[in-house]
Amino acid sequence: LRYGILGTGMVGRTIGGKLVALGHDVMLGSRTADNPTAGEWMAAAGDRASRGTYAEAAAFGEIVFNCTKGDASLDALRAAGADHLAGKVLVDVANPLDFSRGMPPSLFVGNTDSLGETIQRAFPRARVVKTLNTVNADLMVDPGRLAGTHTMFVCGDDADAKATITALLRDGFGWPDVIDLGDLAAARATEAYLHLWLRLWRSLGTLSLNVAVIR
Amino acid sequence: LRYGILGTGMVGRTIGGKLVALGHDVMLGSRTADNPTAGEWMAAAGDRASRGTYAEAAAFGEIVFNCTKGDASLDALRAAGADHLAGKVLVDVANPLDFSRGMPPSLFVGNTDSLGETIQRAFPRARVVKTLNTVNADLMVDPGRLAGTHTMFVCGDDADAKATITALLRDGFGWPDVIDLGDLAAARATEAYLHLWLRLWRSLGTLSLNVAVIR
Repeated sequence: LRYGILGTGMVGRTIGGKLVALGHDVMLGSRTADNPTAGEWMAAAGDRASRGTYAEAAAFGEIVFNCTKGDASLDALRAAGADHLAGKVLVDVANPLDFSRGMPPSLFVGNTDSLGETIQRAFPRARVVKTLNTVNADLMVDPGRLAGTHTMFVCGDDADAKATITALLRDGFGWPDVIDLGDLAAARATEAYLHLWLRLWRSLGTLSLNVAVIR
Repeated sequence: LRYGILGTGMVGRTIGGKLVALGHDVMLGSRTADNPTAGEWMAAAGDRASRGTYAEAAAFGEIVFNCTKGDASLDALRAAGADHLAGKVLVDVANPLDFSRGMPPSLFVGNTDSLGETIQRAFPRARVVKTLNTVNADLMVDPGRLAGTHTMFVCGDDADAKATITALLRDGFGWPDVIDLGDLAAARATEAYLHLWLRLWRSLGTLSLNVAVIR
């Protein structure tokens, strides 16, 4: 498959590199076509890796990942272009972190809305799936870094899109326990969880942490 | 020790019953001194159990539990009386659930504030510890109902109060993994987690669920 990744930060580069390693063709998109960070990533990731603008990456991908920062996501997606996202699975990995009040950050949306839903409303023809936003980049594509079975969440309004991404999470990224939380309004839940994740990071002193849902 | 429990719902009765079973003296408080639900609880729980008004229960307890519904907590605590809470550990188990928009409920506070902090500001002489609000009543006092090690969170601004309650959680209620999330602002995290808990309840079809923090 061809994947477009929006965002050249740690999350975008890590997911993009994993998808290349799985045999896919991946274009890393950013504001400029010659982004040097994307260039370094491309050189390291191999022949199936390329770089381009947000619009080029979105046009290239059969599936598109939003790996931009939450407060930049809508601008990046507008630059990607609604027509380039239409009908495609759009995996939203971003969190609506608000650093304006210092550390730990808060969220700029919550309780009755979420970033995932905001993106879906702005791009109604995209098939938004929210996932992976509850762990750090290394764990996203390599959950085995932590011992034992732990949990990844997915939600979204399009059942086929969720099934596609759940299969990628299970068979590609190696997540043994993927829980479907329901419709995209459940993004309120996984985004709100960031408050707990940030506190756990501070209390435990490691980014390598996740929850296992015991039932 | 003497415990005052505010609230005669499932949570208050369950925690109160466990404290009696552990050998403590417990008064269950409600708006009226002759609450019939508290009467049934008292009859079943034994000689160390009693009932009274919110004010009587708060005056009785050396440690006080707020087990009222989140939207009724401030009224219940005002009825309990600031003087009866002064200097005491006040364990806040409530969640700021907002059912006004249907199911699943949302929260009526979040991101930059919490019910726990609201209570602490309203009763500055109480030593508020937030805990137990992340699981259902049965699990609160009997985590062994779920197999394996799973996690309970505590937070609060008073280190001695947190140590007292952490010891009760570990040695009394049987929680092997209690994580101190820091100051009371972390109540934003454990209250926000309710969004995820409510979705998990719906997706998994069981109230008997919790997270284990893997690290």
